[in-house]
Amino acid sequence: VSDPLITFLSDFGREDWFVGVVHGVIHEHFPRAKVIDLTHEIPPGHVAHAAFVLEAAAPDFPPGTIHLAVVDPGVGTDRRALAAAARGQHFVGPDNGLLEWALGDAAHRVHEIRERRYLRSSVSPTFHGRDVFGPVAAHLAAGVRIEQLGPAVHDPERLPPCAPRREGSDLVGQVMFFDRFGNALTNLTWRVLESAFPGVPEGRFEVRVAGRTLRGLTRTYGHSAPGTLVALMGSSGRLEIAQVGGDAAARLGLGAGDAVRVTATEA
Amino acid sequence: VSDPLITFLSDFGREDWFVGVVHGVIHEHFPRAKVIDLTHEIPPGHVAHAAFVLEAAAPDFPPGTIHLAVVDPGVGTDRRALAAAARGQHFVGPDNGLLEWALGDAAHRVHEIRERRYLRSSVSPTFHGRDVFGPVAAHLAAGVRIEQLGPAVHDPERLPPCAPRREGSDLVGQVMFFDRFGNALTNLTWRVLESAFPGVPEGRFEVRVAGRTLRGLTRTYGHSAPGTLVALMGSSGRLEIAQVGGDAAARLGLGAGDAVRVTATEA
Amino acid sequence: VSDPLITFLSDFGREDWFVGVVHGVIHEHFPRAKVIDLTHEIPPGHVAHAAFVLEAAAPDFPPGTIHLAVVDPGVGTDRRALAAAARGQHFVGPDNGLLEWALGDAAHRVHEIRERRYLRSSVSPTFHGRDVFGPVAAHLAAGVRIEQLGPAVHDPERLPPCAPRREGSDLVGQVMFFDRFGNALTNLTWRVLESAFPGVPEGRFEVRVAGRTLRGLTRTYGHSAPGTLVALMGSSGRLEIAQVGGDAAARLGLGAGDAVRVTATEA
Repeated sequence: VSDPLITFLSDFGREDWFVGVVHGVIHEHFPRAKVIDLTHEIPPGHVAHAAFVLEAAAPDFPPGTIHLAVVDPGVGTDRRALAAAARGQHFVGPDNGLLEWALGDAAHRVHEIRERRYLRSSVSPTFHGRDVFGPVAAHLAAGVRIEQLGPAVHDPERLPPCAPRREGSDLVGQVMFFDRFGNALTNLTWRVLESAFPGVPEGRFEVRVAGRTLRGLTRTYGHSAPGTLVALMGSSGRLEIAQVGGDAAARLGLGAGDAVRVTATEA
Repeated sequence: VSDPLITFLSDFGREDWFVGVVHGVIHEHFPRAKVIDLTHEIPPGHVAHAAFVLEAAAPDFPPGTIHLAVVDPGVGTDRRALAAAARGQHFVGPDNGLLEWALGDAAHRVHEIRERRYLRSSVSPTFHGRDVFGPVAAHLAAGVRIEQLGPAVHDPERLPPCAPRREGSDLVGQVMFFDRFGNALTNLTWRVLESAFPGVPEGRFEVRVAGRTLRGLTRTYGHSAPGTLVALMGSSGRLEIAQVGGDAAARLGLGAGDAVRVTATEA
Repeated sequence: VSDPLITFLSDFGREDWFVGVVHGVIHEHFPRAKVIDLTHEIPPGHVAHAAFVLEAAAPDFPPGTIHLAVVDPGVGTDRRALAAAARGQHFVGPDNGLLEWALGDAAHRVHEIRERRYLRSSVSPTFHGRDVFGPVAAHLAAGVRIEQLGPAVHDPERLPPCAPRREGSDLVGQVMFFDRFGNALTNLTWRVLESAFPGVPEGRFEVRVAGRTLRGLTRTYGHSAPGTLVALMGSSGRLEIAQVGGDAAARLGLGAGDAVRVTATEA
């Protein structure tokens, strides 16, 4: 069996040395570690934004992967440090909602990180990525179990619910994230759409967003002429709004939280 | 023999999770993989820009290196997926001109990627970096040969030719790329210059660009006073226009495609 | 014993291929190499800025770590190439002050890099990260000693001194660096403060900056209400000025070199 991968997500940016230092600490504690940067460009302190990225990316990693996530405005206060086992993977980060994807698994287990032996020898009050979470991720990769880290936690912080809702025959979701290409990703997953509109083929969906109506879901970006606005199921299994060869978010003036309404038209 | 390196070039940016996910998939398919990011900051969909980067960087990597390149506005359409062997290295990417550097080798071999066993178990129509190209790069690193991936391709897409031309006693090239320092890299390689002006020493070249005339090629940036405009053979073997300690592109208002004329003066 | 880590710091940015090429060269010379990017976003040519980053980051890495640092406006001129042993680690870079942190160790040893066998087979005049410093870092990781690289150097370039000074009962330091969160890091290390104000508890320090007076040092960011300006000892052991949940540098209009005055108030 090969070692588990460690992913690393933060709001540290890449202009300073913080990301590199955490990589160093992980290798110091577990020299064989394989660390993959998810992104470090989370806007500073935006926990919900980071939680969305983790939810979108984690399912693409193999079972056993350890996700290290550090967006931590409460570092050094009495907010707890957590390690979770959920969905066949591990998650390490502060108790502020960042690990929402793990906690949404009914079978999740969460422990507080307390055992000093798994931390850096000296723990600062301002950089737990280096002193707490990084070392713990390394120890988990080396085989430590989350039960060894500290007591079970039964009341972890959760994010406010953000599920699509029914309104008459419509399903109403919202824009969650804009990717690099200007595509607007929503909280309307394929599972939610199938459950709300069982058996409806892609051509009969109608999507309304920013005063526009898009008819039918397209399969991929390049099937329409450049400039066309399209709705499609993106690679992380969510409905997204895109402009072929362009930036749909800029074109439509979309912002996070904007409503996206879906209906099924008559056959 | 050590494992081949895998380089990774894309237009994914580093704000989203796409780059990390491809790294994860490669390691899942070949745990010993060594993946080196070339850059992910190609402007979205700019195939020619990415092809230039690949041409500039690939020769600096060892024989056997596998170059994974994903700038893929046609993902999910009927554009083919390719793997090429050329110049002693491997290249994996979409059939849209991105692999021009490999195809410029008269002895190149190209195969279409078709065999499902070398792809991700489920292939989406919108993220072939994750589902097709990444897994194939991993399999090539593990020893699979390009012939195993699918049928030979004899008509891959090429970029429009972009070679310097003679105009009387001038050799006329163009600006191809601006690097981080504001240096303007051209398509005038040392080989082209030597062939056009055999035996001419560096001091007798004259370079005209943006209404300026630069006399002689300098050896490196720091040999002239700050602010001086210089022409020199850069580290990837191309004539470049630079400003000592400054940004030549901004100073001269240069854009990609601007003409750069070279002549040899009398001894 | 596991292999030493190699850190890599430069002003190359991540839009071009330079960083990737150096990674490739290191792996070519030492396939087991573990290379950690510190940052490549140093403003082009800003040696002092890079020297500060190296000083802040290096102590967080294990003994034996090799720090590869390339901010090198004098590349190809007669500036020397150096390798240093200091503070239990190695440092490789140009002789322009970039290695100031190593040279500040009274027990440092520095050698000039001269032996061709440890360089790339062909050395360009414009890219010594690829042709000189990268290969040397790889050779050091493989066990080569700095004495084998070339003659000892007794007069390396140093940066202008930048130590805090006493003015009456005040200790006067300056802003050195702004991190991603807008925190302003100073040259007032904990050691300097303890030596200037022995036994003074955190609550009795007073910090004056940009016309403001901050009373007491706080332990971490999250202990005060959002928007509060605070002074605290940051994770690299330096006094920093921060705004809870915000950007202190922007709020106060701070610039590098701005004075930061510290006094101790009566008990």
